[in-house]
Amino acid sequence: MKMKMEFSALLLVFLSSFLHSSNAVSWPDPPDWQQKPQMARYLSHFADWGVVAAVSPEYSLMPFGTIQSFADGTLKNSTGVPYFYISPMSDTYHNIQYNNSVALTISQAESDYCTKKGYDPEEPLCARLTLFGKMEPVKNSAELKLAKRFLFTRHPAMQNWPKGHGWLVHALRISGVCLLDFYGGASHISLSDYYAAKP
Amino acid sequence: MKMKMEFSALLLVFLSSFLHSSNAVSWPDPPDWQQKPQMARYLSHFADWGVVAAVSPEYSLMPFGTIQSFADGTLKNSTGVPYFYISPMSDTYHNIQYNNSVALTISQAESDYCTKKGYDPEEPLCARLTLFGKMEPVKNSAELKLAKRFLFTRHPAMQNWPKGHGWLVHALRISGVCLLDFYGGASHISLSDYYAAKP
Repeated sequence: MKMKMEFSALLLVFLSSFLHSSNAVSWPDPPDWQQKPQMARYLSHFADWGVVAAVSPEYSLMPFGTIQSFADGTLKNSTGVPYFYISPMSDTYHNIQYNNSVALTISQAESDYCTKKGYDPEEPLCARLTLFGKMEPVKNSAELKLAKRFLFTRHPAMQNWPKGHGWLVHALRISGVCLLDFYGGASHISLSDYYAAKP
Repeated sequence: MKMKMEFSALLLVFLSSFLHSSNAVSWPDPPDWQQKPQMARYLSHFADWGVVAAVSPEYSLMPFGTIQSFADGTLKNSTGVPYFYISPMSDTYHNIQYNNSVALTISQAESDYCTKKGYDPEEPLCARLTLFGKMEPVKNSAELKLAKRFLFTRHPAMQNWPKGHGWLVHALRISGVCLLDFYGGASHISLSDYYAAKP
């Protein structure tokens, strides 16, 4: 009887330990902070969402950040190009119809890394990336097929989102890469270095 | 011997269970989605960080989102006013010197809630809040004292950040509250409702 109880307790704690780890968003270990292009690609690959900053025609042309899920590949491969699934009903879409110059901002605090390490989200050691560029609808059919595969693999829920919302696949055509992952100020990474690196 | 091993295993799993839960960012249960002002106050109170979208004088007046920690109170009380600790060396500071009209965007995905519930970060059930307003330095000495207490309580690391960086306490003076926490589009919450609610 006593042994049975002990076993049940063990089982419960085991299960709760798995539950906890599945609730936290864990990414693989990051590259070294000195490997700037790799760190940029790490953030744009493993993050599932970010804030798209744009100018809002609805709010007197004020800056407006909207939450968007994205994917630059399946988990196993990475292109560096963030693809989005945007409904014409959304604020993001209204903003980019007015002006498609946007910035996508990602924080390492989206994973459990910074909490685990005890880094405040504003500290440079809790890395962050801003990708500047133009948000454009994907028209090429080969790229569209690929982008949909990336999005539906990383965000399975998207496949069931209401068809009536007219979801459109967009790509952020990056023109600037700004990374802060250590003390001493942000790094500006060239597009060729960014695309040549692996996450 | 066997019992000793069982006990050790139990202890290990117990410890790992605590480790897991401390790595995930957990907030208390959210209010009902119909309680819009409460939900807005819930997000601005329990979030530790957000993205400040502004116009960038450095990047050809493009929108630029920067990561900022903030606090609207200690964990036990809440004012609804997000306070920030901003260094004049930062991109955020450069942006607001040019134009202090900004938006602060927060996602419930910063906590473990959306992962736990199986909500994709772009789904409305994974709530998000954008506060529009002007980012202003706090000058009143009573408010400054209060804001520092909020910031240092919620972000203990701030007390040890290098003095030479000239940290300045800022407040977001909110002019608009935009919340998405359910299907059917965003809600625009009046300032009086926002400030009257409790998280």
